[in-house]
Amino acid sequence: MRAVDIIRAKRDGGELTPAQIDSFVAGATRGHGWSDYQLSALLMAVFFRGMSPAEAAHLTSAMTNSGRRYDLSDLPGPKVDKHSTGGVGDKTSLILGPLAAACGVVVPMMSGRGLGHTGGTLDKLESIPGFRVNLREDEFRAALKAVGLGMIGQTADVAPADKKLYALRDVTGTVESVPLITASILSKKLAEGISGLVMDVKAGRGAFMKTHVDAKVLAESLVRVGTANGLKVRAVLTAMDAPLGRYVGNSLEVAESVETLKGNGPADLTELSVLLAARMVELAGIADAEAKVRAALASGAGVDVFRRCIEQQGGDPRVTDDYSRLPTAPHTTQVRAPRRGYVVAMDAEKVGVATMVLGAGRRRAEDAVDHAVGVIVRAAVGEQVKAGDTVFEVHYRDAATLAAALPLLTESLALGDTPPAAQPLVLEEIG
Amino acid sequence: MRAVDIIRAKRDGGELTPAQIDSFVAGATRGHGWSDYQLSALLMAVFFRGMSPAEAAHLTSAMTNSGRRYDLSDLPGPKVDKHSTGGVGDKTSLILGPLAAACGVVVPMMSGRGLGHTGGTLDKLESIPGFRVNLREDEFRAALKAVGLGMIGQTADVAPADKKLYALRDVTGTVESVPLITASILSKKLAEGISGLVMDVKAGRGAFMKTHVDAKVLAESLVRVGTANGLKVRAVLTAMDAPLGRYVGNSLEVAESVETLKGNGPADLTELSVLLAARMVELAGIADAEAKVRAALASGAGVDVFRRCIEQQGGDPRVTDDYSRLPTAPHTTQVRAPRRGYVVAMDAEKVGVATMVLGAGRRRAEDAVDHAVGVIVRAAVGEQVKAGDTVFEVHYRDAATLAAALPLLTESLALGDTPPAAQPLVLEEIG
Repeated sequence: MRAVDIIRAKRDGGELTPAQIDSFVAGATRGHGWSDYQLSALLMAVFFRGMSPAEAAHLTSAMTNSGRRYDLSDLPGPKVDKHSTGGVGDKTSLILGPLAAACGVVVPMMSGRGLGHTGGTLDKLESIPGFRVNLREDEFRAALKAVGLGMIGQTADVAPADKKLYALRDVTGTVESVPLITASILSKKLAEGISGLVMDVKAGRGAFMKTHVDAKVLAESLVRVGTANGLKVRAVLTAMDAPLGRYVGNSLEVAESVETLKGNGPADLTELSVLLAARMVELAGIADAEAKVRAALASGAGVDVFRRCIEQQGGDPRVTDDYSRLPTAPHTTQVRAPRRGYVVAMDAEKVGVATMVLGAGRRRAEDAVDHAVGVIVRAAVGEQVKAGDTVFEVHYRDAATLAAALPLLTESLALGDTPPAAQPLVLEEIG
Repeated sequence: MRAVDIIRAKRDGGELTPAQIDSFVAGATRGHGWSDYQLSALLMAVFFRGMSPAEAAHLTSAMTNSGRRYDLSDLPGPKVDKHSTGGVGDKTSLILGPLAAACGVVVPMMSGRGLGHTGGTLDKLESIPGFRVNLREDEFRAALKAVGLGMIGQTADVAPADKKLYALRDVTGTVESVPLITASILSKKLAEGISGLVMDVKAGRGAFMKTHVDAKVLAESLVRVGTANGLKVRAVLTAMDAPLGRYVGNSLEVAESVETLKGNGPADLTELSVLLAARMVELAGIADAEAKVRAALASGAGVDVFRRCIEQQGGDPRVTDDYSRLPTAPHTTQVRAPRRGYVVAMDAEKVGVATMVLGAGRRRAEDAVDHAVGVIVRAAVGEQVKAGDTVFEVHYRDAATLAAALPLLTESLALGDTPPAAQPLVLEEIG
């Protein structure tokens, strides 16, 4: 079975056999029989021809098996994780993880770093002094046993085929392919040893998928392929036009997450976190899920789990009661409303890029991150402002990055004379 | 301008700008800014999206300029070449080159080697003892001045971008793309310093393009793109279902070419060679082209040019009068008709593969070629045979290759009870 014949089969619209897909994944993992230019040619052919449900399911399985699979079956209780396709201000992982764990779910959460205009859970956690995301397996198991929650990064031995293919896709214009996205997400999640997965599939100008329709196609693929691989998957389609919550930036988002766990969060962030946590609890087979999650929020059980999680992973748990222990930017300034009116839109992508430009995110994967900087939204969509009112509070390190970020923030804001129609945050649930 | 953005532009159906195409060709030539996996991703995107006439014309020009361009303007007279998309038994270059030169055309012919089931002009010429196809530029110019005909291989410095891209296309399933084929053919021909080109575009089971429609699309592209690059192009679509002429194999084809130049060739080979030579003479602006070509054939002026060409390039011209001076296979055997009937079809591809299997061709580019072996068709399409009559005379070196070739020859033959309808050799002319 030659690589070129497999490429030609897909190019001509054929359905690849499991053996052909195995050959491709082995090529991505160990190079055996495949060169990088053949991998990328097949990726482009998949971009144009797509994959059948059976092909996508087998690709996902083969990519999962390309590396290490955690076996957590010795830990009692159902293991459920959540994954988001990425947004701006999206810190729900830091809230729903503790809430779900407080309800009895074991949450073995493996997250990624931020790239481009979207943040990453690992970067947020690392803004907590001492917090270690690179636990050894025994430490991860100990955390899951003691706290019910472990929040770590993917190790190099998890889904190595995905690492290779993602790096190629990124530079060959083959990222935007539903079966390839599906296999990339699910192969890493299946390797965690979970039985259930809640997917937050974002749609809108701050999301990877810009339209509801595109997001729905991806969500359906994730549910179908996850189910075919023995995973219970629930997908929630949510709007990502404006930032989620008020705080964007690593330590700022930790503070907002803690406030939300204490019951003081903004309505959008609180309600989405509760919904996603409730779905996780449901997937774990626990009755009265939403009521239990709300109780964990009201009782402080959630914030208590987060405190114990921080301590378990080497971090300073006092940050949950004293935000000044988190990294703080040396300067702040205000972006003010130029006139009276209503905030009718706030372009999440522009706010995300502005935050990246301030140093909170990465343009390229190898860039360093500044945990202290970011943006606080003081007037969100739907709210009324007078001329001169603060819309954004900018936490910055130096004049150069501020100068680059300010125009983006100004452009992100749309003011109108009448209040905008209320837009639902949750668009649809699938699975 | 990043490679990934150029790939994405083509992937999304956009028309690449000249600067984007220049970047791609520079990447193929010197690697600058492009890795092989990005080149192959763009090739696959072009396979799916195609190219506009303007894009194909600029790609061709950029690939021509990626290497050395011969300037033959100091040699008096029009320079015209012929190119064939490849067939079985197709030795017209050895016949029309001398005929056109005998009519006053300067023919700077750069050819390739055989691959797969099709033969190559260089391999045929090299079966002539002493014949050198790798002339230095001064020797090539001397040959064109003295004989009006030079027959050489492409040097490494001609269209290096094509060499790189062709090697990638071959292993990434991106050969079958009309704009890429067009640019590959024409970039090398434009580098010869010619003003006119006659294209023999083959269609049928022994050709690269299996159907008349596909061959016509390629022919129209070649005429359009060649014209856009200042070349006079005439394309002749010809049938390649059965072998052309009777002899298939390197030294065997030299012998048949000489016989044809002496006026003793089979009708199909003679008429196609005369037609293509006449089109070359026309493109050179010479009146009464076909009559002059027929006169060159009848007078022996054509075979005289071929003799002088062989001598000029270091070969033994006595082969034109004594075929035993050409390499001869140690053994011959016969494939006989199993019953009485008419030869209604003879699968050119199977005959070509059989000849390759005997050793006359290459499965891979690095294989060596046996100049002596081959197949002579003793009963061609339309002819009647009795049971036991010889259909193929097989010239072979050893029992193993013979055993592999015989079933292919047997399968290539279709006998019927009534004569087949006569099929035209020339399907259409374009340009």
